[in-house]
Amino acid sequence: MSINVYLSGEIHTDWRQKIIASCQGEEITFSSAVTNHEASDAAGDVLGAEESNFWRDHKSAKVNGIRTKNMIEKCDVAVIRFGDKYKQWNAAFDAGYCAALGKPFITLHSEDIIHPLKEVDGAAHAWATTPEQVVEILKYTLRNQ
Amino acid sequence: MSINVYLSGEIHTDWRQKIIASCQGEEITFSSAVTNHEASDAAGDVLGAEESNFWRDHKSAKVNGIRTKNMIEKCDVAVIRFGDKYKQWNAAFDAGYCAALGKPFITLHSEDIIHPLKEVDGAAHAWATTPEQVVEILKYTLRNQ
Amino acid sequence: MSINVYLSGEIHTDWRQKIIASCQGEEITFSSAVTNHEASDAAGDVLGAEESNFWRDHKSAKVNGIRTKNMIEKCDVAVIRFGDKYKQWNAAFDAGYCAALGKPFITLHSEDIIHPLKEVDGAAHAWATTPEQVVEILKYTLRNQ
Amino acid sequence: MSINVYLSGEIHTDWRQKIIASCQGEEITFSSAVTNHEASDAAGDVLGAEESNFWRDHKSAKVNGIRTKNMIEKCDVAVIRFGDKYKQWNAAFDAGYCAALGKPFITLHSEDIIHPLKEVDGAAHAWATTPEQVVEILKYTLRNQ
Amino acid sequence: MSINVYLSGEIHTDWRQKIIASCQGEEITFSSAVTNHEASDAAGDVLGAEESNFWRDHKSAKVNGIRTKNMIEKCDVAVIRFGDKYKQWNAAFDAGYCAALGKPFITLHSEDIIHPLKEVDGAAHAWATTPEQVVEILKYTLRNQ
Amino acid sequence: MSINVYLSGEIHTDWRQKIIASCQGEEITFSSAVTNHEASDAAGDVLGAEESNFWRDHKSAKVNGIRTKNMIEKCDVAVIRFGDKYKQWNAAFDAGYCAALGKPFITLHSEDIIHPLKEVDGAAHAWATTPEQVVEILKYTLRNQ
Amino acid sequence: MSINVYLSGEIHTDWRQKIIASCQGEEITFSSAVTNHEASDAAGDVLGAEESNFWRDHKSAKVNGIRTKNMIEKCDVAVIRFGDKYKQWNAAFDAGYCAALGKPFITLHSEDIIHPLKEVDGAAHAWATTPEQVVEILKYTLRNQ
Amino acid sequence: MSINVYLSGEIHTDWRQKIIASCQGEEITFSSAVTNHEASDAAGDVLGAEESNFWRDHKSAKVNGIRTKNMIEKCDVAVIRFGDKYKQWNAAFDAGYCAALGKPFITLHSEDIIHPLKEVDGAAHAWATTPEQVVEILKYTLRNQ
Repeated sequence: MSINVYLSGEIHTDWRQKIIASCQGEEITFSSAVTNHEASDAAGDVLGAEESNFWRDHKSAKVNGIRTKNMIEKCDVAVIRFGDKYKQWNAAFDAGYCAALGKPFITLHSEDIIHPLKEVDGAAHAWATTPEQVVEILKYTLRNQ
Repeated sequence: MSINVYLSGEIHTDWRQKIIASCQGEEITFSSAVTNHEASDAAGDVLGAEESNFWRDHKSAKVNGIRTKNMIEKCDVAVIRFGDKYKQWNAAFDAGYCAALGKPFITLHSEDIIHPLKEVDGAAHAWATTPEQVVEILKYTLRNQ
Repeated sequence: MSINVYLSGEIHTDWRQKIIASCQGEEITFSSAVTNHEASDAAGDVLGAEESNFWRDHKSAKVNGIRTKNMIEKCDVAVIRFGDKYKQWNAAFDAGYCAALGKPFITLHSEDIIHPLKEVDGAAHAWATTPEQVVEILKYTLRNQ
Repeated sequence: MSINVYLSGEIHTDWRQKIIASCQGEEITFSSAVTNHEASDAAGDVLGAEESNFWRDHKSAKVNGIRTKNMIEKCDVAVIRFGDKYKQWNAAFDAGYCAALGKPFITLHSEDIIHPLKEVDGAAHAWATTPEQVVEILKYTLRNQ
Repeated sequence: MSINVYLSGEIHTDWRQKIIASCQGEEITFSSAVTNHEASDAAGDVLGAEESNFWRDHKSAKVNGIRTKNMIEKCDVAVIRFGDKYKQWNAAFDAGYCAALGKPFITLHSEDIIHPLKEVDGAAHAWATTPEQVVEILKYTLRNQ
Repeated sequence: MSINVYLSGEIHTDWRQKIIASCQGEEITFSSAVTNHEASDAAGDVLGAEESNFWRDHKSAKVNGIRTKNMIEKCDVAVIRFGDKYKQWNAAFDAGYCAALGKPFITLHSEDIIHPLKEVDGAAHAWATTPEQVVEILKYTLRNQ
Repeated sequence: MSINVYLSGEIHTDWRQKIIASCQGEEITFSSAVTNHEASDAAGDVLGAEESNFWRDHKSAKVNGIRTKNMIEKCDVAVIRFGDKYKQWNAAFDAGYCAALGKPFITLHSEDIIHPLKEVDGAAHAWATTPEQVVEILKYTLRNQ
Repeated sequence: MSINVYLSGEIHTDWRQKIIASCQGEEITFSSAVTNHEASDAAGDVLGAEESNFWRDHKSAKVNGIRTKNMIEKCDVAVIRFGDKYKQWNAAFDAGYCAALGKPFITLHSEDIIHPLKEVDGAAHAWATTPEQVVEILKYTLRNQ
């Protein structure tokens, strides 16, 4: 068995790198939205400049959507990370998308945001507070009984 | 034609009441998560007290989920409201859930949160800034050509 | 048995009215995109003016999409009309949408556009050249054996 | 990650070749309906001659449909090209098919046909006017963050 | 609870009438393909005469398909009758259609055709040899515990 | 809003009656497998006697399946009761069926069988120990905010 | 592109061998129900002897169903052959199964059974009378434009 | 053809080992829940200790669910074993999950528990009493006609 893991959410800390590094050698393929903030915001610029911020964002969001929609639909499990700052509505959006498709997902966040994340955690298969816990669960998923 | 409209998100202003009042006489049925904050947080308490906040929230979120899951799956269109305060991850979660099911949804939020909502708006059928705009669109959806 | 019939396509002749009038008394509910051309083009204007034609059209198309998406998904059979003029790509789009959902549809068009419509007709359950033929088929669908 | 890209629509210019050539070396597999016009029109002739044009077209359309139906259902993203001439209803049909399946698609057309394509563009993830823009977006979809 | 029952297959004996008559007063709605053989064969004639038998049959089969496709997809249970004569491939086709959709179906046929029907019976929820048995099962399905 | 509630599992105590009685006046429709044990075991007998116990059970199970399959697929929420005695594998089977369809379900069982039910409870939206708790949750699901 | 082709139906002539031999070197994988009649009829015997023909057939049909269900669901196109003799209800059953799943299929039969096969042909993408025609169509499906 | 076989249920005898050993050399990939009882019960412990047995079980069940949900959804056929002891509700849950997804499954159990398993067996494609019978059926599924 091998698994595809989609890493969604916060882009300001190195949680992705930690998880990927610790899973070296496992039969895991990781995918992720483009995590370079500027590149992501500019994803639609090639299609022409926009005067309005709304439409610039709109075009980039939809171009990014080609990527993320495919990644979510092909993953076996998602890890969805909420940091301490920013709205991170895209992460919660991904969680809802996973839930509707029946894709299992693991949330990764600290204890102080339990309450606002209760609906998201309620649909998750696991809540982790550290990347190490996520790694343990992913490895468990692949263990040879 | 009649339509079912699910109203999701912010519970601190009267946007729901405005929309419902202005749609009196139309063939629209509205549904909504329980918007009484305390009642919603306590939805699972009947099943027994919990020491941990996480599990209390978990139980309530899942009891609420019985209600909201059915409402979203039966609606024809959702209106998803983001206010100026709070995380409102449940609203973004509902948006992702709608997107994955192919349910059209309208977002309702002010201009200053365009950027963090770009993925959500990118999947929406319309972005409105006032309840009146939402009402116009709902009525249009029902017009006799 | 009663059926929902979605009438899609050309808006410059009275084919819809003919079909509806001839089906009076049958257990048929008809639905249709907004056929008032100006109203349809302006469907998104309530959400704010746009400088660019593309975005004005975009907003209106998506508002109209709330309506048509629901109508197609709820119909039992669609009638898709192609006239002699205009591109009518929305009609072909609706046909593809029906085909992917497995919704039976009847095309209504004259003989001189058989060739460009061959893929659309190939997925249709019937090709009619007059509204009267469509009416006969709809009534047949409802006959008491 | 590798992606399957279905190229649909206009067959009289070299847009397919341009895109494929510029994506050499990327992990992209391209597919397409048979673009040799005569071969495509004759796809069903092996099954026996027809006196009526309608049935000849019908047989060929359905034989082609075996190919295109599989290609669309297996693609990760479609590029749908509308040229300046001809009806091209098959391209709009493919767009509707993609939309109903939730397959992301990119439209490729010039600015002067924005209005008749508004429903198609409304369901698309991106609108490009040049093959080069399409190439940029496809490469972005595959970038290593 | 009320149920929709689709009656498929043989049209030369009065098994449909027996079942319907014995279920008078129950909350059962029955549906059926057009059982008037000549009317069924002529279902597509309104769309124009055909020289070839194949195309005449083709058109009628597809017009009938609008009706039967909807009936099967809306039924809760199908009864599929195989008589002693004729090929009755449409009945076996309906059985396969039900099986793929997960619709429960009851076969109704005599003991001497058990062997050629083994795949059909293998997918059925019940095999009956008389209309009376079918009636008992349908009534059981509706019983108030 | 009104809801359909499917009551599954143990048939030796009056938990169904308690729940139904306490929900009088609510917009709830209840359904259930046939709970008369002897009638349920004999459901297939009308189709002919069997020498082997396996085939007698098989026929009855499949006749019952026509009923329960429809009830589960039409319910909005299921209540699945596990008593202290018997294997009750049909109840766990129903739970798995609900889980795969994404139907929310509430388990109803005492604390001493938590461990063997952990997979079932892990997929449930709520675990109740008394019918009164179930009633509270069902009423909450219908409350007018 | 490579395709999976499921070969269904008549087992008394060498149509399968002809098609497979003529497709040597193409990227086609063929699958088929077990075509050794005796082996197929005995597929369930390992599970224990049955006194009744019905149950012997039943067990074998269901064991064969494990194989054929997977093959049909994984194929890209099916070829369904009807010969001049026997009931061949399993072939028509497979056709209905394909139709409900939206799997394209090609029928292969002589002209004298057009009428009883009209519903099956009505749902098919092509009707061939010789294996050579089927081969041409399969090769066309794979051609490099 | 190769197949994925999911082995579910009883963990106290060596039925899995027997089946796997006898299928050496066949194109079969086996998967299974973690069958080390203690490891399975502790699957969620990495996420933090729980005072309540219910929540400890809950967390572990959901972590295990990531694994088993993927395995069931990817398998071509499941073998579900019921032993003589314990409740084994997880096995019946898996059977219901398979049934709802349309995954064929084989039950493996002795004759004395036929009656409580009648609903599970009613949805199965085969009932075996020995691992050797399962092996024969799996090999049959792969045979070269």
